[in-house]
Amino acid sequence: MQVAIIGLGLIGGSMAIDLRKRNFASKIIGVDSNNLHAQTALNIGIVDKIESLETAIEQSDIVILSIPASDTIKLLPKILDKTEHQIITDVCSVKGNICERIKYHSKRANYVATHPMAGTENSGPWAAQSGLFDGKAVIFCDSEDSSPQALMTIRKMYEYLNMRALFMNAYSHDVHVAYVSHISHISSFALALTVLEKEKNEKNIFDLASGGFDSTVRLAKSSAEMWAPIFEHNTENIRAVLETYINHLEEFKDLIIQNEKEKLIEIMNKANRIKKIL
Amino acid sequence: MQVAIIGLGLIGGSMAIDLRKRNFASKIIGVDSNNLHAQTALNIGIVDKIESLETAIEQSDIVILSIPASDTIKLLPKILDKTEHQIITDVCSVKGNICERIKYHSKRANYVATHPMAGTENSGPWAAQSGLFDGKAVIFCDSEDSSPQALMTIRKMYEYLNMRALFMNAYSHDVHVAYVSHISHISSFALALTVLEKEKNEKNIFDLASGGFDSTVRLAKSSAEMWAPIFEHNTENIRAVLETYINHLEEFKDLIIQNEKEKLIEIMNKANRIKKIL
Repeated sequence: MQVAIIGLGLIGGSMAIDLRKRNFASKIIGVDSNNLHAQTALNIGIVDKIESLETAIEQSDIVILSIPASDTIKLLPKILDKTEHQIITDVCSVKGNICERIKYHSKRANYVATHPMAGTENSGPWAAQSGLFDGKAVIFCDSEDSSPQALMTIRKMYEYLNMRALFMNAYSHDVHVAYVSHISHISSFALALTVLEKEKNEKNIFDLASGGFDSTVRLAKSSAEMWAPIFEHNTENIRAVLETYINHLEEFKDLIIQNEKEKLIEIMNKANRIKKIL
Repeated sequence: MQVAIIGLGLIGGSMAIDLRKRNFASKIIGVDSNNLHAQTALNIGIVDKIESLETAIEQSDIVILSIPASDTIKLLPKILDKTEHQIITDVCSVKGNICERIKYHSKRANYVATHPMAGTENSGPWAAQSGLFDGKAVIFCDSEDSSPQALMTIRKMYEYLNMRALFMNAYSHDVHVAYVSHISHISSFALALTVLEKEKNEKNIFDLASGGFDSTVRLAKSSAEMWAPIFEHNTENIRAVLETYINHLEEFKDLIIQNEKEKLIEIMNKANRIKKIL
């Protein structure tokens, strides 16, 4: 199986490593509009060769789009125009607008919408690593719109990455990830901004970060270029979660100011229920 | 050196383990008002014996208070009343009110105010572990109010726990930890409440948590009984941080709703500066 990967960052690069290492792909063809990323991926052996988008599509059986959401929305219809037998998939964290965009495309059945729920706060081909996806969930969206053969091939591919398959329609996907992923990133970005603004002594931040700050702020290191388009394509869901989140913070603030210890303990005990789930 | 530990939870228990294992303490005497905790600590070998508070103080050279902040404030003056040669320290995450409370106590010099910045989201003697403090920072507050000999002894004790000593006055300590530790916990508790309220399907939370949620929500598993008194004794600082934090979240919300992509990228790049520090 020849696999073209468009976008050789953390996700594309990590897929490349394990798909070849585990013998799903006989050859990985890389495409990246960023020359430095392309050359790095080639130099560190993540891909076998770098090609133009057209050549890469022509020479491959599977095309994986691992680029920001807004680029995926633009590029996906054009890639579908060019495909014959190729199967196309993407890895975006938003799915509603993407699936909407190509809903009536004549080659829709060649496309399988997926979202592998894995990552780190780092980006670029340097951040790619083996084992990134092991044991994590991959969400297949609107899979009834893909051909059985395309779906089977992409399921097999994610099996090589040791991922658990879940199935949802694209709009429920976007609601769930707003709650379970997108809000965590915003909460982390806002936390970093707060601390950077208020704590002028950077050495204090470093010294004191073991008090819990390090884990809650980790996601604030994430790529702005990747996250802005996600927010753009999941606005309504994110707005709803952010409103609820801010309300809970206001509740905390009011109870702390009024020294309502019993009520504070009550809501923290409620929050503790997360222990049983995670 | 005989060490009495009042409160055999995560922190007290973990100190007990390494202080004896590394030959700082020849004997660990445990005190806990919770019988189950006391018996468990004895059964799993964290302490050599369980005694009443009075007996434990009498028989020890060092007394470590590792109980919630409000109990520390109540108990510390009474313990100082009883001490002769004993050196007393505590581990609370708030220091201003505690130091204020015993500022004019005749035995003030026997007390060393410290805050070891280490922990996990788990609690109780079951959560105690060796190595918890290794490489982390311990903050000494108002150390000029402790006798040189008491300070030296407690510094030595934290050296056995492999901690880096930092020095601050109690009020700056409380400001810094509000930014770098307390806000992280509130942010995490509020996040857990948001997701538990909105995502009724717990299996989805579990399945999708690898999208970043797991790390940002980890602290929401923390003990409510420990955190309520911390909020109570650091109200003003926490209120200030929470206000700034909520403002940043509102800014994110507005920019997302108005689809101000460039400005979103700008503030996320600003947040990314945390990478250089942590």
